[in-house]
Amino acid sequence: MGQRINLLVFSGDYDKLYAALLIANGARDMDMDVSMFFAFWGLLVMRDPERMDSEGKSAYEKMFGAVTPKGPEDLSLSRMNMMGIGKSMMLDMMKEDNAPSLKDLLDGARKNKVKFYGCKLSAEVMGFKKEELLPELEIVDVKAYIQDAVNSDMQLFI
Amino acid sequence: MGQRINLLVFSGDYDKLYAALLIANGARDMDMDVSMFFAFWGLLVMRDPERMDSEGKSAYEKMFGAVTPKGPEDLSLSRMNMMGIGKSMMLDMMKEDNAPSLKDLLDGARKNKVKFYGCKLSAEVMGFKKEELLPELEIVDVKAYIQDAVNSDMQLFI
Amino acid sequence: MGQRINLLVFSGDYDKLYAALLIANGARDMDMDVSMFFAFWGLLVMRDPERMDSEGKSAYEKMFGAVTPKGPEDLSLSRMNMMGIGKSMMLDMMKEDNAPSLKDLLDGARKNKVKFYGCKLSAEVMGFKKEELLPELEIVDVKAYIQDAVNSDMQLFI
Repeated sequence: MGQRINLLVFSGDYDKLYAALLIANGARDMDMDVSMFFAFWGLLVMRDPERMDSEGKSAYEKMFGAVTPKGPEDLSLSRMNMMGIGKSMMLDMMKEDNAPSLKDLLDGARKNKVKFYGCKLSAEVMGFKKEELLPELEIVDVKAYIQDAVNSDMQLFI
Repeated sequence: MGQRINLLVFSGDYDKLYAALLIANGARDMDMDVSMFFAFWGLLVMRDPERMDSEGKSAYEKMFGAVTPKGPEDLSLSRMNMMGIGKSMMLDMMKEDNAPSLKDLLDGARKNKVKFYGCKLSAEVMGFKKEELLPELEIVDVKAYIQDAVNSDMQLFI
Repeated sequence: MGQRINLLVFSGDYDKLYAALLIANGARDMDMDVSMFFAFWGLLVMRDPERMDSEGKSAYEKMFGAVTPKGPEDLSLSRMNMMGIGKSMMLDMMKEDNAPSLKDLLDGARKNKVKFYGCKLSAEVMGFKKEELLPELEIVDVKAYIQDAVNSDMQLFI
């Protein structure tokens, strides 16, 4: 049986998601099984920018959905973001070195059969419906995460 | 022998502590052993708001004790805190979904026999006395943490 | 065979680096093998303040090199930094308790044969040349990190 990697993605920062997806894609290339469990701010990267739907949401959930990032390229850096100036400089530096964008990495992970799980409680509290998130994402509870993680060869909280 | 989970709680953010305690309580429900090692800002959640005592502290330690959060409900969000507006909105959203508060989760973990350890060096530097922290907390050094963590089935740095 | 610890150091915060190096030195004292993989902001602590060289860098890389921290003592706290006031207060509190500085811990780790790896992609994007980083640092790609981490007894993302 192959080796298994489990990543809990709590953060909604561009650079941390970038690190998480680099590891996920690298491990899939090495033929390992990879699970990513998106919780709290990490769920923001799983939003499909083309599938927003605020019907039936509470006032708070509508507001929250409107002011938070929608999908990968909308996220900020964890530091030096400086209202977006630092981020666009970082993106330019990445282009100079032909580094993939966060969206490229996410598309790669979807193609490479990384398993995507979303935290049930986080989705409920933030008011995200299943249809607003990427179709590959399976909503599970924290115990399903623990079961998967504890039986993996490596776990990270990102 | 059962499975063991070790969480190093470095952060003092409401949302990260929430994630840590959700995992700790979930794993206890699944009959795993759970250790939490509170270090640096993580120690702030272990403060007992009713047992402050600044006698014998240095000037810095007194000031530090006064300006830092006292116990679980005093912590801020890691992002979107916006001077507390974002946090109170998040708390309202949690109430809408009947999600437990951080204090509920902490009380649960205390009842569920999660093992609480506190970092000796952090407590000394921050000037927190044993009597100011929750009585379940055992103060240990970093080597005790490493020994426990490396022999667990899963470790996270939160 | 001894136990092995793998730390992915993503953060460039003084306090998180401090925690990482405390664990690394503690584990070496306990005769474990320790690998640290410095990626993204974590690479900043690996800069040698005496060996800056901007020749051949792009305009962005020069600017980035100039505005980012140079070596351990230049890093900020992850919270309560308050333009440096909180950090200098924290450093004074550490002195009161005779706690080592971050530079002390880094020097200890170098002497104690902690293995230092740097992320190839991060170094390229940030424009850091091998000669600007500590000589002990070996530049490797993400797959080398994964290989090392998944075969360790404990992994943390810091």
